[in-house]
Amino acid sequence: MSKGLETKENILKSALELTSKFGLESLSIGGLAKSVGMSKSGLFSHFKSKEALQVKVMDYAAFKFTSKVIKPAIKEERGIPRLEKMMELWIEWSENYMAGGCPFVSSFVEYDDRPGVVRDHIMHLQKTMIGSFERAIQIAIDEKQLKTSESVQYLAYKVYSNMLGYHIYSHLLSKEQARKNFTKQFREIIQT
Amino acid sequence: MSKGLETKENILKSALELTSKFGLESLSIGGLAKSVGMSKSGLFSHFKSKEALQVKVMDYAAFKFTSKVIKPAIKEERGIPRLEKMMELWIEWSENYMAGGCPFVSSFVEYDDRPGVVRDHIMHLQKTMIGSFERAIQIAIDEKQLKTSESVQYLAYKVYSNMLGYHIYSHLLSKEQARKNFTKQFREIIQT
Repeated sequence: MSKGLETKENILKSALELTSKFGLESLSIGGLAKSVGMSKSGLFSHFKSKEALQVKVMDYAAFKFTSKVIKPAIKEERGIPRLEKMMELWIEWSENYMAGGCPFVSSFVEYDDRPGVVRDHIMHLQKTMIGSFERAIQIAIDEKQLKTSESVQYLAYKVYSNMLGYHIYSHLLSKEQARKNFTKQFREIIQT
Repeated sequence: MSKGLETKENILKSALELTSKFGLESLSIGGLAKSVGMSKSGLFSHFKSKEALQVKVMDYAAFKFTSKVIKPAIKEERGIPRLEKMMELWIEWSENYMAGGCPFVSSFVEYDDRPGVVRDHIMHLQKTMIGSFERAIQIAIDEKQLKTSESVQYLAYKVYSNMLGYHIYSHLLSKEQARKNFTKQFREIIQT
């Protein structure tokens, strides 16, 4: 990796940590400059505006999500095992890798009511993520591992609702109890 | 209502609107003073600190939630009809009454990883809300409207996960499609 790329990756890593902890709206070129020890003008040469920085950070989050959750899951056997692996790795991503919880959930809730480029981009990334679940479910149906009269869209909605439920309950109850609920409902959805 | 109380209610109403739109962290005594046309020192006489203001705003949200969702639902017949009414009124609350979506979901996601008085209070209010669902479910079981081998805690988790799923999907898909998913999953949970 060239020095330029390495620097940009490090900046985005810090920016994602700040986003995960304090939210996407709080992210500013000034604050980020302080956090990575660069000048504001130096950072402006990488990102031309706050909005551009926010979009790039979410792209970086999507890149990390793909490499931590989607790609390793795709190495699993097609269908249910792959979907199970996605769930397992998502929990790990949300809890261990992201100090402040899943940045997609946080930024979505933050921006769902603020029209503009940043919101549109977050919506696009959410749809892409849900698309990954839908594909894994479709494969499970094609492979005859999952017999259902439901639409793939609806099953993905149930899978994602369960993930959101876990996200909240893991902070309200013990992580173990939240995990029990999560696993139980997931098993019901995929009927195993 | 005395003038003092009326003023405080109006201030909290504005504060809750700001919170719902821009998040709890963005709420400041200075910003709120501008929005309600009062002096900063005038507002300081009502709320001694930003944290105190944040706690009071969440209490006000809980008060509105109780009067818009819980109290009217309790007028319904015990059990399933009451739970159904809660769901219907929650959607209305989240969509029509709160311009920026449910303030409990937003503030929870914002504060889940920031230890302190504000987070503790948000957690407490979430538990109270979930407690209302648990009680309605327990009554449905007692009234023999709901036959289940599941725990009330787990059923409330499913009900709440479904609400969270709706919260996200209503921004991603059409509200009608999100509502279809929501209703379908709710019917599965309560087996009707």
